[in-house]
Amino acid sequence: MTQRWKITVEYDGSLYAGWQFQQHDMSIQQALEEAVFAFSGESPRLSVAGRTDAGVHALGQVAHFDLERESTEKTVRDAVNAKLREQRHHGISVVTAEPVSEEFHARFGAQNRVYIYRILAARAAPPALLRNRVWHMRDRLDITAMNAGAQHLLGHHDFSSFRAAGCQANSPLRTVSLVEVTEDADAAYGAGQAISVRVEAKSFLYHQVRNIVGSLVPVGTGKWQPEKIAEILAACDRTKAAATAPAHGLYFARVDY
Amino acid sequence: MTQRWKITVEYDGSLYAGWQFQQHDMSIQQALEEAVFAFSGESPRLSVAGRTDAGVHALGQVAHFDLERESTEKTVRDAVNAKLREQRHHGISVVTAEPVSEEFHARFGAQNRVYIYRILAARAAPPALLRNRVWHMRDRLDITAMNAGAQHLLGHHDFSSFRAAGCQANSPLRTVSLVEVTEDADAAYGAGQAISVRVEAKSFLYHQVRNIVGSLVPVGTGKWQPEKIAEILAACDRTKAAATAPAHGLYFARVDY
Repeated sequence: MTQRWKITVEYDGSLYAGWQFQQHDMSIQQALEEAVFAFSGESPRLSVAGRTDAGVHALGQVAHFDLERESTEKTVRDAVNAKLREQRHHGISVVTAEPVSEEFHARFGAQNRVYIYRILAARAAPPALLRNRVWHMRDRLDITAMNAGAQHLLGHHDFSSFRAAGCQANSPLRTVSLVEVTEDADAAYGAGQAISVRVEAKSFLYHQVRNIVGSLVPVGTGKWQPEKIAEILAACDRTKAAATAPAHGLYFARVDY
Repeated sequence: MTQRWKITVEYDGSLYAGWQFQQHDMSIQQALEEAVFAFSGESPRLSVAGRTDAGVHALGQVAHFDLERESTEKTVRDAVNAKLREQRHHGISVVTAEPVSEEFHARFGAQNRVYIYRILAARAAPPALLRNRVWHMRDRLDITAMNAGAQHLLGHHDFSSFRAAGCQANSPLRTVSLVEVTEDADAAYGAGQAISVRVEAKSFLYHQVRNIVGSLVPVGTGKWQPEKIAEILAACDRTKAAATAPAHGLYFARVDY
């Protein structure tokens, strides 16, 4: 009897060529599918909540796959992790594995997706400990102004101004349920201003979060007024927004079903 | 005219063989001295506040050196960072450079040293994003009990029970001015219980912080009562304490002069 498994996965995106299979580079999907095969002898295809680009990290990516073999939560989690480590994929970890019904679908069943974008600002020196983990910039950012700008994005809008050219979605309409810019007190960041931008929506356009962050930063530096975000959104024109924020500051944090 | 420079340095200890010169492996001291030479053409020896072992990280290590060449804070900081990156030492970063008087001494002038030890507990899966940055364990830890145990260490004591065999200090007496165990809410840790142990003293014995953390963990799991820490301290016997906590959870956070 086939059992569907839901796995929650953490990964360091700087070590892989993104989620999806690549001809010449190791992807997170390939590493996980090889580990599932090494443990079970079966070759199920993984379906994922959100394909991430090279460099993008995950704290709580979700995927599902079907196994003929009977197993337990603990065995699936620990065996896949052990096989990943045998193959030296130390940058991928299965945080939990849960049996789910055959109606569960990691991508189509997602009701809410949470992304966090991390910035290390107000710091002249490049980060050593957070290299490839944050977007580093020398300027200090005004969190209050960024939050004021961000609130214009809340709700149901045409997000064409924040949509990458390669986006394959049928519609540019999306509903953003939360955008929040906070300053963190985490001592482990080291010197500088540690900022997180949290964005939540049922689904996102391609590069939507990175494009939003890219346009909130000039609001934080004072180059743009917060109201500029409303103007960019209303224009429905990608050329009105700022450049895309780099991949390595982005974390796919959580999916709710 | 010779100018003494104080530099504050952040580094990822997992990429280097510790602070001090090694015959066959790259040390942080060697990488920095080569970068200073590449920038200035001079070969000053660096003096450091605290030599760290392989694997140990720094958020605010302090070192000093003398240069004949005149320069500015910005030039020293940015030039050394640029030379480090040319040599692909991305794991080391000079956060600040300041001219100081010739009386300044990074090691002998230190009035207070701050270490932070990071633990990722209550988590079955190995950390992907914090690999080599935290001590990972499956058990949940009782922070209240750990803090109760830690308070026995405050003040002026013979710390022989927490002193490594190779320690070259003349005396086992040290004055611990702060020990604090906190649970962090940092979302970037991912799943699990994120714990920091902060320890402050004017100076430390060899492995003192790692040995203290090693003995606070069994208090956190409930294997030992908090009062056991007082017994261990009073015994002045290394064999009474638990094993040394691993190097890769330790951060040299700050030095005050």
